[in-house]
Amino acid sequence: MKQSQLFMPTLREIPADAEVKSHQLLLKAGYIRPVTAGMFAYLPLAKRVLNKIEAIVREEMDSIDANEMLVPEVLPAELWQRSGRYETYGQDLYKFKNRQDRDFILGPTHEETFTELFANDIKSYKKLPLLVYQIQAKFRDEGRPRFGLLRTREFIMKDAYSFSANQEGLDAAFTKMEAAYVKIFDRIGIDYRVIVGDAGAMGGSDSKEFSAPAAAGEDTIVYSDKSEYAANLEMAKDFYVRQDNPQAGIDLADLQKIDTPHAKTIDELANLLDEKPENLVKTIMVVTPENELVAVVTTGDFEVNLVKVQNFLGYSDVELADEAQVKATVGASFGSLGPVGLPENVQLLVDERAADLVNFAAGANEDGKHYLNVNWNRDVDLTEEQIADFRTAHEGDLAVDGKGQLQFTKGIEIGHIFKLGTKYSKALGAQVLDENGRATDMIMGSYGIGISRLLAAIAEQKSDDKGLVWPANVAPFDVHLVPVNVKDDDQVRVTAELEESLTSQGLEVLVDDRKERAGVKFADADLIGLPIRITVGKKAGEEIVEVSVRADGSNFEMRLSEVNESIAVLLNGQTDEE
Amino acid sequence: MKQSQLFMPTLREIPADAEVKSHQLLLKAGYIRPVTAGMFAYLPLAKRVLNKIEAIVREEMDSIDANEMLVPEVLPAELWQRSGRYETYGQDLYKFKNRQDRDFILGPTHEETFTELFANDIKSYKKLPLLVYQIQAKFRDEGRPRFGLLRTREFIMKDAYSFSANQEGLDAAFTKMEAAYVKIFDRIGIDYRVIVGDAGAMGGSDSKEFSAPAAAGEDTIVYSDKSEYAANLEMAKDFYVRQDNPQAGIDLADLQKIDTPHAKTIDELANLLDEKPENLVKTIMVVTPENELVAVVTTGDFEVNLVKVQNFLGYSDVELADEAQVKATVGASFGSLGPVGLPENVQLLVDERAADLVNFAAGANEDGKHYLNVNWNRDVDLTEEQIADFRTAHEGDLAVDGKGQLQFTKGIEIGHIFKLGTKYSKALGAQVLDENGRATDMIMGSYGIGISRLLAAIAEQKSDDKGLVWPANVAPFDVHLVPVNVKDDDQVRVTAELEESLTSQGLEVLVDDRKERAGVKFADADLIGLPIRITVGKKAGEEIVEVSVRADGSNFEMRLSEVNESIAVLLNGQTDEE
Repeated sequence: MKQSQLFMPTLREIPADAEVKSHQLLLKAGYIRPVTAGMFAYLPLAKRVLNKIEAIVREEMDSIDANEMLVPEVLPAELWQRSGRYETYGQDLYKFKNRQDRDFILGPTHEETFTELFANDIKSYKKLPLLVYQIQAKFRDEGRPRFGLLRTREFIMKDAYSFSANQEGLDAAFTKMEAAYVKIFDRIGIDYRVIVGDAGAMGGSDSKEFSAPAAAGEDTIVYSDKSEYAANLEMAKDFYVRQDNPQAGIDLADLQKIDTPHAKTIDELANLLDEKPENLVKTIMVVTPENELVAVVTTGDFEVNLVKVQNFLGYSDVELADEAQVKATVGASFGSLGPVGLPENVQLLVDERAADLVNFAAGANEDGKHYLNVNWNRDVDLTEEQIADFRTAHEGDLAVDGKGQLQFTKGIEIGHIFKLGTKYSKALGAQVLDENGRATDMIMGSYGIGISRLLAAIAEQKSDDKGLVWPANVAPFDVHLVPVNVKDDDQVRVTAELEESLTSQGLEVLVDDRKERAGVKFADADLIGLPIRITVGKKAGEEIVEVSVRADGSNFEMRLSEVNESIAVLLNGQTDEE
Repeated sequence: MKQSQLFMPTLREIPADAEVKSHQLLLKAGYIRPVTAGMFAYLPLAKRVLNKIEAIVREEMDSIDANEMLVPEVLPAELWQRSGRYETYGQDLYKFKNRQDRDFILGPTHEETFTELFANDIKSYKKLPLLVYQIQAKFRDEGRPRFGLLRTREFIMKDAYSFSANQEGLDAAFTKMEAAYVKIFDRIGIDYRVIVGDAGAMGGSDSKEFSAPAAAGEDTIVYSDKSEYAANLEMAKDFYVRQDNPQAGIDLADLQKIDTPHAKTIDELANLLDEKPENLVKTIMVVTPENELVAVVTTGDFEVNLVKVQNFLGYSDVELADEAQVKATVGASFGSLGPVGLPENVQLLVDERAADLVNFAAGANEDGKHYLNVNWNRDVDLTEEQIADFRTAHEGDLAVDGKGQLQFTKGIEIGHIFKLGTKYSKALGAQVLDENGRATDMIMGSYGIGISRLLAAIAEQKSDDKGLVWPANVAPFDVHLVPVNVKDDDQVRVTAELEESLTSQGLEVLVDDRKERAGVKFADADLIGLPIRITVGKKAGEEIVEVSVRADGSNFEMRLSEVNESIAVLLNGQTDEE
């Protein structure tokens, strides 16, 4: 394609409000433009990248016999009322009325839509398992859209769903989907980690996230520096072995209540008692959707992990309790809470590290007072059912598999696969008859890839100070063919010959036919970041051109007769490396 | 692909509320399902057809160097307020507020969005002309969605726009786009006509419609049975040569007012006067958006064509006047209106056939009275500027090019190309500096193809009593491979061999691996309508299969060794024919 016919408005300056690298570069290089807050137009170069990503996704979905479909983006509210999400999804859900005053939403995801289709049309286990997917705009009325394409109100997602008649079918679909995702992200050429994800929010039992490490990421990836272990921060586990009987052979000292008017924090308490935080406990209160209080006790050196608590309790959401509610129920303020003497209507959960402490200090549930020498079961009843990992892992701790230290890095969620179970099939009555003629709920999985977010995630990872550096498989064009002087007959002739021969080889070639100075052309070429640049300059008359590789900046002078083969080798080399 | 893994829920009965053939067949064959009124899910077979249509559209758009882009579907109301369409588009526009109480719409088309992008980023004539397009869901809150995919509230469109610095640029873009459309519809294999369309509503100067003849069509295509002439009914012209001086050599009889209390219609008047309707005139009143009355006079044998009137007057909309308003202004009711003695604030337009009448009868603008022997200029002032073609053409009349008779047929609009001019660039300030450094409005064109409507339009044309009959280039799969008995070893072996060899040839093969009776399999195969069926039956052991061509029902027994080549020939034959 001729650059003169391409809408590619590069900028000299980075717009002031673009905070992260991908947003800055995609604006500057003429890939995207905002239309309104959190909604972007994809200009031709970006659309070419999106098309390549989508083609890879389609090929890998088709290769596992997933069925491509397309459902409406506007959905009747009634469908989401039946699943309950019309109320629970919150403010991010776009709601509106049509001309007949009926309620509709803009779909942020489509579990309900596909479940309803399957409920109506699939009646026998013999028709299952089935995998379906679609690639389509999704909508989320973000309170604070930000970071360019990383958090938008309208975005392109591949969403997929599996329907099975039994758990083995779900497990098999999940495994196939995970393998397909690995192939997809490998082919795209992005760096990513497969991490343990939080399935709880979707009502599921198992989940994995595909996360692309990048400074602009909003998630924290926790991984071991010596093993394959990786999880998002909400799910990450450090290594800890419970003690068989921690109180064995230790004198249980007498419980003692002391005045601690100035010890409102763990550090203040530790200072006061000259004790390490890991030998004290802290107690925070969370509130369930049913407005019940739950006390969660951890050692003083860890923070409570709300996601682990809510998954343990089986809720899709728990929140930190309000101090007034705590005071009214327990009789004490934050900073003086503890496990001893809680009212009966407050459930107690204890982190496994705290459960192993002996003779430890804790808040006395009385403002300005703490107990010393608290001991489980003597002072507070505690059963194994109340004990689990409720803490947020620390960077540097031993990983849960005992291999290597936990490292933290920022990541962008680019894919997520869930075992959903029967949440939606129960709500919408999606049942099949099993081998014995009994009605059974379909068992579902849900599998997403953020297509437009990938565009930004790649840009976050693949760039340098001159601009973007696209992986070969998703670059808008393969080759940037740049005649230095479009009025020079030799250069024009050689450019035309190269365009013809490279194109006939199946390569996508962008020809910079503009009457611009060489410096402008080279700067634009570096900025938009195609894998290979061929410069047709003064030696064109001698049939010699210059080939530059964007990724490593290497340059070669080359005879025209060698170009075709060399370009193929250079491009394949880049693809193989990934 | 194996049919057991395909979500293809065929029905035994046609749902009762499906009125037109395409809707009935696409439901029955498991291609689509309604999600709510006017919004459909495209099941896997339909999505495959859509993908093939989209691929053809992309290839032909790319071949004229149109730039593929993608803009948000949710648009800020402010953009449409600036063009004026936020108010004028009417109830079909989906309007809603986001969580911050700002106004948004769902885009039914994107002239404003692209104009704004170009206004911001294109500043010089040197960057033009440019062609851009996108394929995407569009939204129209139809009062009465109907006919399955033919009139929906959410639909897939290819919309394209051209931006030029001068009129020649627009003309060239329009011509390129028309040629590309011809290739697209030829390749898709649909029967269509290119007809003169109504450009007025879009504020443009020239337009062509691509219309697919079909009984379910909502448009009337008017075409000559002996020439290339074709237009939609609103624009169609019959052949008529104005007389040089119709009053020459004829005695102008005295104007005479008569009582006609029982002649409220043209037929009643013609009966009363024993005169042919073509020698009388009728006068109807229309009202402009500024609420001004316009009298339009035609001969009694024709109906007034409101679209021709509104385009002549330069409005996007005129309506028939309300009888009370007419009575208050003119002093007479419908049925007694005429050109003589109209108040000064009522503009007069006269159809060219009526302008050539002499000594004709017309309403007297007095209830129950008509004039006889009206003559232009003696009784009513009339200049050439008031005379034009304001009539709706009749079937059977001579076509405007003088070649052949006008024929009427129903058609489905599948494409539409417009010369838009500067309506949107003026409204949104999209200007470039021209060769002389002067600011000039960009000149635009707008070009649409109804992608999802095409799916239905093809189904309307290509079916028989057994089901759908897809043209080869857009069929969901090329070949339906049907082993009669999936427990027969020979049949299983031959099926696997054929699947492998056909697939490796680049063909898309659907294998009916279901344990169903042959009758069920054949009925389903006919219903979903793939171009070629290969039946692997009792002669599989002798390496003989049966090949059936869906389009003409022909059948051949064939040796396995001949199949590959024959299928290629049969498929190419179908493609070439189109």
